[in-house]
Amino acid sequence: MIVEVVAVGTELLLGQIVNSNAAEIGRRLADAGMDHFHQTVVGDNLDRIAHALRTAAARADAVIITGGIGPTQDDLTREALCLALGRSMAFSDDYAVQLRSYWERRGRAMPEQNLRQAEYPAGGELIPNPKGSAPGIRVRADGGAWLFALPGVPQEMLPMLEHEVIPFLAHSGDGEGVLVSRLLRTWGEGESRIAELLGDLFEEAENPTMAFLASSGEIKVRLTARAGDEAAARALIAPVEAEVRNRLGPRVFGADADTLETIVFRMLDERGWSIGTAESATGGKIAARLTDTPGASEWYRGSVVAYHEDLKRDLLDVPAETITAAGVVSEAVAEAMAEGAAARLEVDVAVAVTGSAGPDGLERRVGTMIIAVRTPEATRAKTLHLPGDRERVRTYATTAALQLTRLAISGHWWTDDEPAFGRPRRPVTEPTGS
Amino acid sequence: MIVEVVAVGTELLLGQIVNSNAAEIGRRLADAGMDHFHQTVVGDNLDRIAHALRTAAARADAVIITGGIGPTQDDLTREALCLALGRSMAFSDDYAVQLRSYWERRGRAMPEQNLRQAEYPAGGELIPNPKGSAPGIRVRADGGAWLFALPGVPQEMLPMLEHEVIPFLAHSGDGEGVLVSRLLRTWGEGESRIAELLGDLFEEAENPTMAFLASSGEIKVRLTARAGDEAAARALIAPVEAEVRNRLGPRVFGADADTLETIVFRMLDERGWSIGTAESATGGKIAARLTDTPGASEWYRGSVVAYHEDLKRDLLDVPAETITAAGVVSEAVAEAMAEGAAARLEVDVAVAVTGSAGPDGLERRVGTMIIAVRTPEATRAKTLHLPGDRERVRTYATTAALQLTRLAISGHWWTDDEPAFGRPRRPVTEPTGS
Repeated sequence: MIVEVVAVGTELLLGQIVNSNAAEIGRRLADAGMDHFHQTVVGDNLDRIAHALRTAAARADAVIITGGIGPTQDDLTREALCLALGRSMAFSDDYAVQLRSYWERRGRAMPEQNLRQAEYPAGGELIPNPKGSAPGIRVRADGGAWLFALPGVPQEMLPMLEHEVIPFLAHSGDGEGVLVSRLLRTWGEGESRIAELLGDLFEEAENPTMAFLASSGEIKVRLTARAGDEAAARALIAPVEAEVRNRLGPRVFGADADTLETIVFRMLDERGWSIGTAESATGGKIAARLTDTPGASEWYRGSVVAYHEDLKRDLLDVPAETITAAGVVSEAVAEAMAEGAAARLEVDVAVAVTGSAGPDGLERRVGTMIIAVRTPEATRAKTLHLPGDRERVRTYATTAALQLTRLAISGHWWTDDEPAFGRPRRPVTEPTGS
Repeated sequence: MIVEVVAVGTELLLGQIVNSNAAEIGRRLADAGMDHFHQTVVGDNLDRIAHALRTAAARADAVIITGGIGPTQDDLTREALCLALGRSMAFSDDYAVQLRSYWERRGRAMPEQNLRQAEYPAGGELIPNPKGSAPGIRVRADGGAWLFALPGVPQEMLPMLEHEVIPFLAHSGDGEGVLVSRLLRTWGEGESRIAELLGDLFEEAENPTMAFLASSGEIKVRLTARAGDEAAARALIAPVEAEVRNRLGPRVFGADADTLETIVFRMLDERGWSIGTAESATGGKIAARLTDTPGASEWYRGSVVAYHEDLKRDLLDVPAETITAAGVVSEAVAEAMAEGAAARLEVDVAVAVTGSAGPDGLERRVGTMIIAVRTPEATRAKTLHLPGDRERVRTYATTAALQLTRLAISGHWWTDDEPAFGRPRRPVTEPTGS
């Protein structure tokens, strides 16, 4: 199954928005084991859209089009489909009724031009849009290719892709069965080390297949199985997942839609514990990330960002002599910050960070980040040496702090000779250019 | 001048990375007044790359290619250029010497396959890459189109685009002179209101042209002039910029590469003042953004994230009776938080935020965000009603807090009947789908 993506929208060509839809569709197609060789972007121009659709339909089994199906005069995907496929325009009376009622429920008069959204190329069908008023369109070219027109708004496009297009393609034609993916999320090792630990599994993997994905230091292991139905596919994945978890141990922090924050909150919830942070070099990033989660106030109480040394003393009760003796970027200071935060913020779990994010080194060399976690059981620190620029060092340290917090809460305390949980990918030191 | 973009890389098709290069190039082409009708993505496949290049070269005056010029066997852009243009492969002895010395300076032996980077299609030229070892390539097709191959890594690609490709195209051929752009950055009004305030200027604008760009609530006004040389272009921009600034007043916070953070730090520096924050609903995001700036410790001392009510009392000295009387999401509490932060953090300027970011309303309806700023001159609060989901409300409130801080430091205190600085774009309430 070869699938091609055509994105319609002058705003994409002007760079006013990034074509994140294409990447998202690419990911889903890869998950589903479909081939995907071309992506095209064209502006709101009838002839150019039609030409792009004809080209794509000629070389692919399916074409996914995003954008250009709104109600205004510059939404031209419907007309372009007719032009490209040599079809007349049909009109759905049913959908027109739905549209009117959609507007009536909102107590507003529908602009007549919105009836354009009930139009579609003859021979095609409308695809419901649960998140908006513009329906999608499915139509088959005479040459056999399926064309799907979806909205450009990602929040509307993605559910339609997930629930309509991918399942339709997965089931269409050749009795290939269903594809099911499972994503295991890891932190603390680079992609090459994960690949090494799973090397023989990767080589042997046929069904499920195995893939490694890296983003912002998080390495994901994706298992994708094909079977007659979903239960059978999950049964194929289960033993491989168990072996992967066995080999990677605590590096695996979650699966599928989990995040480190939601995992930490879940563990706190089980124990009836609260959390707070004491940040220096990360400057509030851990607090910001924890509070990105809706409902964070159930577990998260607050933070002290003690960027200056005297605030570490005044607001976190770090003893002046500790700073003098060990230096402000030290495990002793990080542990004292965590203890101080637990007392001042009245929390059960406190995570503290001190370090040197650059560009200029503060006592220790740039990239030295020290994380301490205090739980009701113990307080312990870990020193990391992170590569990259200021932004990357701060981002990695934030994720590493959450990973160490997860381990500490579960009682899995690290030791100095243990593999560096929280260590990111090996720094790229070779000249690049690809 | 019609320019087309071809991005090469299987990782783009798999959705492992988003094609942000294409958006960035699109923006720069729009800035330069060039037409841009097609973008294509192809994987690391010789025939498909060559076909995409032939197609693009046939319908455009110039083609910008990103990716596929690294040293490994799956970097195929050089070969594809030869195949598409019917050229043999040439080799630059000069560049080979540079490559060897690049590796020697790093004390390492160069893998022999890296010599591939000295190859280019006969008749073409290498373009220096100041940020990496892979040079770019410029070559003219027999049909007249210019093709430029650049690295896929944005940090390497962008300087080459900016300093080599765009100037070359701007000067090539038809004596069009140079294009110069000036970006004025505003915060506090939606795009439609800015467009209204500048309506007649926009209509009259020919040279410089005027465009509006919106991102994360920041509205940018771009003026682009064409003239014989840069000084002449800047002279055309100057009076229009002055009139735009006159009409928009304090909504304009900076120009070109300015950010609110760097502007705030600059103003603090002039006054010898320090800054700290007291955050509730934004949960550390203002602190994180301020400390993203290298050298922030010159002016930024620290923050208290008092997510829970009792921490507002304990760590920020907000009187319990103020909370009881006014409610925790109130201007009185925000002002007390700012005063408390100034005292506890020992800073001259303190900015405080309390509010309800959602999804559930806390006392006040979701989207109510109250910002207070304390300077050595005064303390004042402002209530904002921000649209959107939790993430958007928190992000907008963070930017609004920085904008109000900027205004407060400069002594431009807001009044209740003044236009809502900090108010973002009008929420989209109509059904969408384009």
